[in-house]
Amino acid sequence: MRVKAEADQMTQVQPQGDQQEHAESHHGYTSGKDEYTARLRRIEGQVRGLQRMIAEDKYCIDILTQVSAATRALQSVALGLLSDHLAHCVAQAVADGGPAADEKLREATAAIARLVRS
Amino acid sequence: MRVKAEADQMTQVQPQGDQQEHAESHHGYTSGKDEYTARLRRIEGQVRGLQRMIAEDKYCIDILTQVSAATRALQSVALGLLSDHLAHCVAQAVADGGPAADEKLREATAAIARLVRS
Amino acid sequence: MRVKAEADQMTQVQPQGDQQEHAESHHGYTSGKDEYTARLRRIEGQVRGLQRMIAEDKYCIDILTQVSAATRALQSVALGLLSDHLAHCVAQAVADGGPAADEKLREATAAIARLVRS
Amino acid sequence: MRVKAEADQMTQVQPQGDQQEHAESHHGYTSGKDEYTARLRRIEGQVRGLQRMIAEDKYCIDILTQVSAATRALQSVALGLLSDHLAHCVAQAVADGGPAADEKLREATAAIARLVRS
Repeated sequence: MRVKAEADQMTQVQPQGDQQEHAESHHGYTSGKDEYTARLRRIEGQVRGLQRMIAEDKYCIDILTQVSAATRALQSVALGLLSDHLAHCVAQAVADGGPAADEKLREATAAIARLVRS
Repeated sequence: MRVKAEADQMTQVQPQGDQQEHAESHHGYTSGKDEYTARLRRIEGQVRGLQRMIAEDKYCIDILTQVSAATRALQSVALGLLSDHLAHCVAQAVADGGPAADEKLREATAAIARLVRS
Repeated sequence: MRVKAEADQMTQVQPQGDQQEHAESHHGYTSGKDEYTARLRRIEGQVRGLQRMIAEDKYCIDILTQVSAATRALQSVALGLLSDHLAHCVAQAVADGGPAADEKLREATAAIARLVRS
Repeated sequence: MRVKAEADQMTQVQPQGDQQEHAESHHGYTSGKDEYTARLRRIEGQVRGLQRMIAEDKYCIDILTQVSAATRALQSVALGLLSDHLAHCVAQAVADGGPAADEKLREATAAIARLVRS
């Protein structure tokens, strides 16, 4: 299904049914792709900074403070992606109704559970 | 708190760089520096992978799963650093006693609180 | 379950108080009220057990293990309520469309953020 | 508080084995027992309040807000207990040295990991 979605993407045929997943995820965070990329690049920089702090024997507590900052930044990206997902992929599936809606809701709830527990 | 640590340090081989930070962190994670660096490099790779997933319009939920994995990996690094810190910097301060011990314990507790809430 | 809940609503007398809120919560966790009440009663028992452990000078680490268990149980209740809320209140608002849908999604995302950070 | 705990320790027979754990936890949160009991009683009240909210069909999001508040209150109790534990049980074990110190540190780190992941 996922592979199929990627194939669809090459030709950008208007999707239906199963292909909808691609369209839905496209409708999700796509409008904010540049911002998400920029935020992830900053987080990548924070993680490189952590490697530097280790290399430079920085004080444990200062390193832990930076790890917490990077963790919060990752969680904030996750919350943004999740919000876009609910507002687009899930909302669309619910509007269409049927078992796909239940599946999308179940899937979103499982993702929220992973976030809460990570 | 630092004063005592610096005094202790005089009696030991002088490290390069910020002596106080080095001396404290030296007692902590130094023996595992290579492993921490390797783990942080893997996390950096995970964060670059997330940028790729965004660029390739991957499905929101799959991206969220990877964000959770990177978050857990960061928290696991933090728990390792914290454990080393308790076993070395804090243990040493407690063995030396005095206000430095209370300060180290207060500082470690604050770092744990940031971890729990991040 | 969803169908039944909707059927119930047709045949039901409009509730007192803030009807919208009631109707919304009715679509949410109502079908599982007894189960949520039972789970919360168990958590209440866990918290009373913690008071007993303190009174009996139980070992700190054993108390912490019980606190973590109660915390996880509370989070699991929250995830269930959230899932019901997405499947009913939010889904209904999205189906109705308009600004109410955006508001419900914004509100749910804020609740998820509180969960992730608590 | 520390001074008093140390004074208590002087006047007490050195415990062995299982009793040691009790004595150690005694040196931990005991000076704050009443405060911990009061905080846990408030949390118990919050959990009963959650059962009332369910019974009264309160709005899902308002219930979730209260669940997050109760969760944070539990975590704050855990952080206090952990801090007392580090300052007393662990500090004492580290001062005594030997394998008991390593075991206490390993045990405390595992408890922190459970907190971070709960």
